[in-house]
Amino acid sequence: MWDVKQVVAEMTGKVFLVGAGPGDPELITLKAINALKVADVVLVDDLVSAEILTHCPQARVVNVGKRGGCKSTPQNFINRMLISLAENGEKVVRLKGGDPFLFGRGGEEMLALKAAGINYEVISGVTSGIAVPASMGIPVTHRAFTHGVTMVTGHTQDDDAVNWKALVAAKTTLVIYMGITKVSEIVRQLLAAGMEQDMPSIAIQHGTLQTERHVISPLAMLPMAVHQEKLASPAIIVIGDVVRLANTRNLLATLEVAA
Amino acid sequence: MWDVKQVVAEMTGKVFLVGAGPGDPELITLKAINALKVADVVLVDDLVSAEILTHCPQARVVNVGKRGGCKSTPQNFINRMLISLAENGEKVVRLKGGDPFLFGRGGEEMLALKAAGINYEVISGVTSGIAVPASMGIPVTHRAFTHGVTMVTGHTQDDDAVNWKALVAAKTTLVIYMGITKVSEIVRQLLAAGMEQDMPSIAIQHGTLQTERHVISPLAMLPMAVHQEKLASPAIIVIGDVVRLANTRNLLATLEVAA
Repeated sequence: MWDVKQVVAEMTGKVFLVGAGPGDPELITLKAINALKVADVVLVDDLVSAEILTHCPQARVVNVGKRGGCKSTPQNFINRMLISLAENGEKVVRLKGGDPFLFGRGGEEMLALKAAGINYEVISGVTSGIAVPASMGIPVTHRAFTHGVTMVTGHTQDDDAVNWKALVAAKTTLVIYMGITKVSEIVRQLLAAGMEQDMPSIAIQHGTLQTERHVISPLAMLPMAVHQEKLASPAIIVIGDVVRLANTRNLLATLEVAA
Repeated sequence: MWDVKQVVAEMTGKVFLVGAGPGDPELITLKAINALKVADVVLVDDLVSAEILTHCPQARVVNVGKRGGCKSTPQNFINRMLISLAENGEKVVRLKGGDPFLFGRGGEEMLALKAAGINYEVISGVTSGIAVPASMGIPVTHRAFTHGVTMVTGHTQDDDAVNWKALVAAKTTLVIYMGITKVSEIVRQLLAAGMEQDMPSIAIQHGTLQTERHVISPLAMLPMAVHQEKLASPAIIVIGDVVRLANTRNLLATLEVAA
């Protein structure tokens, strides 16, 4: 006898929304690797290290990022692709840098899958906003310095979206994703909101990778430092007293020169 | 010829400050597993699943948590233990629930190791504050709802440490670690700071594990719901519009009844 439910289940695909971690190929989870091993198709972002794809030699890999100078694939197109592949019975891994649910559009993809009745699973990853500063010796929280951390995106459609004044008053460590191209504007707003000019700040490009580069400086000088060193995306900016703990030469010297 | 530096390096121990992830034993990183495999000693918290220790059958395991009704080991004692073991040439893994640098005292341990001149490495983990809500279908950020997330601890020495008023004004999703025993006080402060009484809220105990339990309710009713369901530590509280996305029965019904 055929088990109809079983047959349908086998015919039905599934989408895994998977975080690949911050860059270092070892900072991926076992659960992510297990999903990659059974994937028929992997839709991958620019932010994912090529080495991570060695876990899925059997899968077709589709790059939906901006690599190669092309525009990135529109989100709606990605959503439709995930749905269509799963409807064809394929096991699909949507592999994203960091964590899929922190500024990763994973929420939007999940809602599209739910609306289409597609079977899905979220596999959380190590987020860059914690792991990248950690790789420099910076704990985003340390009870001697702060009782919390706020993660915001610098990349919003609406420039007034982030209430910088409230964030300055909250005195949590600030971690800014995708803020490097808007660093001047962000720093201007933070200073206008009353943050100290010499608040320790760091911008880190390609954190946890061999190609890592960073600048560390008092807040007011951060835009100049980023510009001088030509730091670019992908980068994480961390602002707060915990940045004093960074394992980097010249931190105190830089801060003193500037102060 | 002996290479003196090499001999010293081999005699010198090392401490790995390692995040074990939120609970689900598969949400541990490859890097953490590789450290566990070479460990001589593992100092472990209560929050770490027993299954994770199957990666280090060769290691001595020391439980420094509160399990079994004993008081937890004082932080200073743990710091001294890490230093002393490493000075004896041992490879030590300090295995902590979630991420070691987010409310994990990992920062304090790192500073103690630095001060003692001990070789150390931080291995970031998947943090519970993102992965636990994700396991319920809640993305802590979704651009239709918020531009950021703030993670704070409810467990502070100083009750005025957290500026709830600023956090309410910031309108980021709020994730509260170790807040379950203080949920009434936290909710009182949020309401006093102007947060809406019907802001969607969830408290999740043992998230990502089989033993997971949760309550979901409008903010004003959260303390009563936590009390009725006898939720206890370890638990994560999430407050914000993104909680509407939870994959849980009765969410809208509960919210409507309460509204």
